[in-house]
Formats: sequence, structure tokens, C-alpha cells
Amino acid sequence: MIKVQLKSGERLEDLGIGKLTIIQNPNYFCFGIDAVLLGWFAARGIGKKSRVIDLGTGTGILPLLIYGRTEAQKIDALEIQGDIAEMARRSIVNNGLEEVIAITTGDIRNPPTPIKERRYDVVVSNPPYMRADHGMTAPAETKAIARHELRVKLSDIADFAKRQLVDRGRLYLVYRADRLVDVFCALRAVNIEVKRIMMVHPQLKKPANLVLIEAVKGGKPYLDVLEPLMVYNADGSYTDKINEIYGTEGPRANHILLES
Amino acid sequence: MIKVQLKSGERLEDLGIGKLTIIQNPNYFCFGIDAVLLGWFAARGIGKKSRVIDLGTGTGILPLLIYGRTEAQKIDALEIQGDIAEMARRSIVNNGLEEVIAITTGDIRNPPTPIKERRYDVVVSNPPYMRADHGMTAPAETKAIARHELRVKLSDIADFAKRQLVDRGRLYLVYRADRLVDVFCALRAVNIEVKRIMMVHPQLKKPANLVLIEAVKGGKPYLDVLEPLMVYNADGSYTDKINEIYGTEGPRANHILLES
Repeated sequence: MIKVQLKSGERLEDLGIGKLTIIQNPNYFCFGIDAVLLGWFAARGIGKKSRVIDLGTGTGILPLLIYGRTEAQKIDALEIQGDIAEMARRSIVNNGLEEVIAITTGDIRNPPTPIKERRYDVVVSNPPYMRADHGMTAPAETKAIARHELRVKLSDIADFAKRQLVDRGRLYLVYRADRLVDVFCALRAVNIEVKRIMMVHPQLKKPANLVLIEAVKGGKPYLDVLEPLMVYNADGSYTDKINEIYGTEGPRANHILLES
Repeated sequence: MIKVQLKSGERLEDLGIGKLTIIQNPNYFCFGIDAVLLGWFAARGIGKKSRVIDLGTGTGILPLLIYGRTEAQKIDALEIQGDIAEMARRSIVNNGLEEVIAITTGDIRNPPTPIKERRYDVVVSNPPYMRADHGMTAPAETKAIARHELRVKLSDIADFAKRQLVDRGRLYLVYRADRLVDVFCALRAVNIEVKRIMMVHPQLKKPANLVLIEAVKGGKPYLDVLEPLMVYNADGSYTDKINEIYGTEGPRANHILLES
């Protein structure tokens, strides 16, 4: 079940897609629903031959979900924090995916070779932002970097996509709904046009807190505002759509297989 | 019931708010759900002392709805087409509102005095756009002007609001959802920040076709994406929310009192 060493405080979680597993450490940042939704949303734009990169991969959740949901065979991932990147790398080894997913420690503003010389068909990112469900403070430095726009700015993602996406290449983001104007304008400024969005509302009668975004490099202005996605029913249970996205065995928090 | 003359082809409709009526001519452009929704959405930002202007008022539907829903006492309205403005003026006279609502024939790019010298607390507009529910052609010239961006551009509305809104003044628009990126970027370019939007979906599981927008001159970036508004239930009946907005006696099409 496990080929790598778990460090103190770490645990192995079942991703519920194929036989995929991921190492998490609750003392760091654990993946949330935003990553799960983005993995689902981005999958439609990723084919067998797509070269994909995830910017700010954290514990490697998006590359694993994309591998699980698509036929992608070349997934790069950048993570600026060395200890987190190392944990993500162990998850990749544990899944036997070293030939498919490459986790690189580095800064998206100046990525190391060979990433900086590659062109990508698809860029995905669940960039750092203050998450509405985690209050206003993040005690540990690692968490703070993962949750806030301390090191990676939206404009850095836009610049990376501008430089390294192929023409008509796609950018997939999940972001705070309250910063939608920033996203639209930052991307249009680099000739990347938002083409599809899906608002994510905690409930039908509540404001959106997240938005899923598909943008196309060199795309023409025309936006599809998809049907909204509601997370919870009025009684607090997950909606049918969320159950469909997660699947019966999907990546819910705390499918813990092992703890250290 | 009627103090003015109906011309051939015209009819008098009950607006269902107070005792308000409006003259419509089905050979021209008749008001639609977009105007009704904008009148409802904008009402929250309009008080007794607000000086309001409607850009491209058509048959005067928005000034009448705003008068009916708020305590506004000073509502200007600009309409570029003389014959439509004249029809709107007769509706105002028929409602006895000459002291409250002033319909002016003119171009928003260079409005006549005294409008060009006024500052407004609130600008509203249901600007011309190709309506998804009316196909791709508009046979008559009058209809074409009202429905398409032939004479009034989004940037003209942005420029008017930039020039003539007071600081922190509000702009309310209803627009095609597929042009949301254009709206966000055109307004930010003139330092008017979109602060609240409500997506309007024909049904829960369909893409949005309209969006209601509130923007603030000099506002800080922070967007509220309100709960989505669905027009129809799956069985084709209006949703409770739409019934609430229209009211039991609200401005549904074809509440015809008189025809000529």
C-alpha cells in the first residue's frame, strides 16, 4: 500500500479515483474542495497529448486528480516551498507516476530549466488566496504562503500563461468570486480571454464564494456563464452535483489509510 | 383613465405598480423582462434625494418602474430617437408625472443642456444589445437601434458615468451575460468598479443569459456575486422570485387597458 516513508504528522489519504493516494499533513495546508472542483472542471480541456502544468501545486493534488480524470501523460507541477514539493514528490512515487508527473521546486516568475523552455497546452492553478472558510489568520508560515497572495500574484500566473501557453492554449483557475473583476482584467491585459465560468455557491440562496474559470490565449470575447454549482442542499447535505463530482469513492477529506 | 391621445398601433398597458400605465407599440420595441429586473435591482440604491438618469430610456419603462419602487423625485431620461421619446413623454403626462420624470431627446455622448451640466447620484441603463430571445435580425430600423449597439456603445455609457456621476455614485446596468468581461473591463478603465452582480438564468440548469450589475464610481475592488436569479421552473412556470419581483399585479407583458 505504501512505498515511501511517512514523516511525523503525515497521513496517507485515499483519493478515490483509481487507486490514487496522496500524502497530507494537517499541520500544513490540506487540499480542499476548490482543488477537487478545479480538477473536475479542467479535465474537459485535457486530452492524451496535452502538455499540462500546475502552478503552485502544493501537495500535488491537481496533477493527481488530472491524471485520474484524463489521459494526460505529461504533467509538470511547480511548487515554491521545498518541503511541500518534497512531500508531493513522495506522493507521486507512491503512486508509481514518476514518468507522468514531475514536481519541480521553483518560482513561477522565473521557473527552472527545462520548464522555462517548454510550451504548454494547458496551465492550471489553484492559486493562493485567503479562503473564506479559514478565517482571517493563518498561524504557520507555510500555511500563510499557501493561502495568501504572499509570493504568487494573479499577475504572475497571467504572465506565465502569456509566456508559456501555446496559441489557443487554455488556462484553468479556481479563484475567489469576489475577485472576479481582477481575474477578467488581468487576463485580458495579456490577451488571454475568459471564455467560460462557473459560479460556486455554498447554497442556492447564498452568494458565490468561488468561481471556476476557463480562459483561452488569443480567444475572442464571448463568455459562457455556465449553470451555477451549489455545494450544499438546504439541509446541509451535499448536492447531487457535488456527489457526482466527488464520485461515491471520491476525494473527500479524511479518507485516511495510514497515519504517522 | 387616459389623458393623452393613443396613436395608431399603440396600446396602453397597466404596469401593476400603483396606478402606473405605459404606452407601448408592438411595431416598435416593447419593454421586456430585462427592464423589469433592472428596475427592481436598482431600486435598492435609490432614495428620496437621489438624482437619477436613465440612458436610452426607450418608452420610459425604467423611470416609471423606479418612480413606482422608490421615493425618487428627480428622474431624467435620455432617448436618441425622437418618436420613441415623444411616446415616452405621453406616458409621463398620462401618469401625471411631469414634475418628476423628464424625457429628453438626445445623445448620451453629447447630451443637451441642462443634462450635460448635472451630476447624478445614480445612472441606470438597459443599453441596446442583441437580445438572445429575439434572434439575429431586427427588421425595422427603430427596433434595430433599440436592440443593437448601433448608436450607443458600452464605452459611451462608461464615459457618461465617469463624467456625470458624483463620487461614490452608482451605475446600474442589465446586460448580456456573455459580455461580462467587456463590462468589467470597460468600467474599471474609467475608475468605476463593479461591486455586485446577479446572474439571470432562464432555468437552474441553463447558462445565464443576462446579468444585473451595480458599480460604484471610485469603488474599491471587491465583488459580491449574489445568489443567481432563475426565471422559469423546470415546468415552464415563473419561479417564486420572479413572481415576487413582478408582484401579483406586476408589469407582465400584455396587461392591455386600451388599444388604438
